Amino acid sequence: MPVNIAPLDPAALHPVAGVEIGIASAGIKKPGRKDVTVFRLAPGSKVAGVFTLNRFCAAPVRLCQQYLQQYTAGGKEIRALVVNTGNANAGTGVDGLNRATAICAELAASWGLATEQVLPFSTGVILEPLPSEKIIAALPEATADLSPSNWAAAASAIMTTDIVPKASSKQIQIGGKTVTITGIAKGSGMIHPNMATMLGYVATDAAISQDLLPGLLKHAADVSFNSITVDGDTSTNDSFILIATGQAGHAEITAADSAEFAALQAAVVEVSQFLAQAIVRDGEGATKFISINVSGGASYDECKAVGYAIGRSPLVKTAFFASDPNLGRILAAIGYAGIQDLDVDQIEVRLDDVLVAKDGGRHPDYREEQGQAVMNKAEIAININLQRGAHSATVWTCDFSYDYVKINAEYRS
Amino acid sequence: MPVNIAPLDPAALHPVAGVEIGIASAGIKKPGRKDVTVFRLAPGSKVAGVFTLNRFCAAPVRLCQQYLQQYTAGGKEIRALVVNTGNANAGTGVDGLNRATAICAELAASWGLATEQVLPFSTGVILEPLPSEKIIAALPEATADLSPSNWAAAASAIMTTDIVPKASSKQIQIGGKTVTITGIAKGSGMIHPNMATMLGYVATDAAISQDLLPGLLKHAADVSFNSITVDGDTSTNDSFILIATGQAGHAEITAADSAEFAALQAAVVEVSQFLAQAIVRDGEGATKFISINVSGGASYDECKAVGYAIGRSPLVKTAFFASDPNLGRILAAIGYAGIQDLDVDQIEVRLDDVLVAKDGGRHPDYREEQGQAVMNKAEIAININLQRGAHSATVWTCDFSYDYVKINAEYRS
Repeated sequence: MPVNIAPLDPAALHPVAGVEIGIASAGIKKPGRKDVTVFRLAPGSKVAGVFTLNRFCAAPVRLCQQYLQQYTAGGKEIRALVVNTGNANAGTGVDGLNRATAICAELAASWGLATEQVLPFSTGVILEPLPSEKIIAALPEATADLSPSNWAAAASAIMTTDIVPKASSKQIQIGGKTVTITGIAKGSGMIHPNMATMLGYVATDAAISQDLLPGLLKHAADVSFNSITVDGDTSTNDSFILIATGQAGHAEITAADSAEFAALQAAVVEVSQFLAQAIVRDGEGATKFISINVSGGASYDECKAVGYAIGRSPLVKTAFFASDPNLGRILAAIGYAGIQDLDVDQIEVRLDDVLVAKDGGRHPDYREEQGQAVMNKAEIAININLQRGAHSATVWTCDFSYDYVKINAEYRS
Repeated sequence: MPVNIAPLDPAALHPVAGVEIGIASAGIKKPGRKDVTVFRLAPGSKVAGVFTLNRFCAAPVRLCQQYLQQYTAGGKEIRALVVNTGNANAGTGVDGLNRATAICAELAASWGLATEQVLPFSTGVILEPLPSEKIIAALPEATADLSPSNWAAAASAIMTTDIVPKASSKQIQIGGKTVTITGIAKGSGMIHPNMATMLGYVATDAAISQDLLPGLLKHAADVSFNSITVDGDTSTNDSFILIATGQAGHAEITAADSAEFAALQAAVVEVSQFLAQAIVRDGEGATKFISINVSGGASYDECKAVGYAIGRSPLVKTAFFASDPNLGRILAAIGYAGIQDLDVDQIEVRLDDVLVAKDGGRHPDYREEQGQAVMNKAEIAININLQRGAHSATVWTCDFSYDYVKINAEYRS
């Protein structure tokens, strides 16, 4: 079962003015399963997206990138999103592009939009032809279901191997107005930086100029979805979308150094981090949630490299599964993180607050029982100080259990 | 059980003139276990070594590097090796260096050598103080056991989580003389490029000039131990040593473009590849042996990057464990191998001889039964043609099973 995720409370998910969501069953993989989700965005909405860096990126990712590029170059507004589970439409060549385009065109026609105003998303089995006819046939049902209150339903509808739906919502004050930030995400296995098998949608009714949105999104992605790893694989379909409808009624945020921008960014980061951490907590077979805090680095990138070397190591992850305070595996991972001039004698490593390593080896005061006490917990922090600079980064990961192998040996993704 | 390794035949391991080996029990981890191995090299022997790139490299690795540097700078010949299992002497700081030095000094004194003529090696638990007194106390027993015929015994004595001993031997003709190449290796988990938790010793009685030896060793390491992966972790202690005693009686090889050099190199590569592949076959929990052949690359490095992306992927490896011809996971791994300008529509992927992917997706003629038939085998080749150049590389890996998790959750390395 997932590590410490409270059940989703639909009432805690505030609607976002300007965003309606509809759900439908297309029967893509399982009859009756809600597998199609549409988002309708009010006119004036601003949209930004970041996507997988996998060269085998899926057809919908290519279309999203193309449509967003046209939009930011002065083209028509993005006004709709359509998401399906059960089929990733990846490794499907020209046919895949045609089928994704057909879905966008159909939804656009029925909503009075142009094709390129509709962003498509798919997740599920790779290399199978997308049953676009089924999805198209389900669009009227999804349209009829449109409602501002469907966030929780959408969080469930976009799940694949996820055990629990993932959603978060927050309200802040900007210019005397209440601003809402609500988001959902899916993804459990194959999660790694650059956004593996992950779909994330965060929407706000804040008013912000279009040129500020990509930077805000990139920062939020860096410290959330791009700071987690479950098994190190990166997928073909990962997408993270930020929507700002501008309907909250405050003056548009136009400066990145304003207090309003800072407040909005902090709230978007908070929602995004909650979603990203929920993905790790729901990692395939996860029994422990591990925060790797790396400080004292010469750069953000080297801190993140150390965090990922530890967070990806099968040896570290199986040791955490076994509740074994196996310091050596952590130190070895730090050692191969790729920092050529790393002075290992300077490094301090703590398990939670327990100082375990210093001066290139185990700290003389450290007692195995102390490490064992930490390892028995379901939430563990590995705190590393490289003592060579002022930068820091955090990576979140989970342990590696029998169930990880079982799920991935049996699931055809 | 290991995948397709024939039981070791001690009679097939030819002694190497100029190399004697002795084994002893020091009781480092288990009473009575043969855990100390010494090699005595005849005067005139040439030695080269390559070592882990892990910044947390162990004390013996630091000493080996220092002694080999002194030797190649005109210092005294390397005349002895001493190897212990049960303790890696890694993350042990200054005390670890002192203890490793003490062992070298003791063996040197009893054999009439200088300390820096003895290379030390350790493998086993990290972060525990090395019981150097026990090892020193066992040196007389090891010395008394010295024999040219102890290769098989040494292959067993250097094992840790290995299930089977690994050794290979070959004889070729150079200048009308019989030249022997014999080697042993250990290592099962934590195996990845740059030589993780791996010890390898290959000796030949060929005569070759000292300046040619490092290049020969590096090439042999690149296409053997640095072309395998079990779980992607790299260790603190990996070492690969090549010894040439010069006692075969032929004229010394002094030119890298000579037929004699080519013949010797080919034989050293063959022995090294057998040992490296045996490590994968004995990978922790392995049930399948997988060769990833990447051709048509713009460079050797990019071919190897593709091979390693596939060979390290937990998703690919669990699919192989399940005998699931899950092409999508292979394509996804190719996609994130880091080749920025990769044209995925050009790539051909075959499982053994079965063409499974072409033109950016599944080949229309491919039938799942064909892939399934290949996946049911214990030895599988993934053949990838990037169709963008003339370079190629091969990476060997194994699958990822329940037993991998079990072994690594329970073993304190």
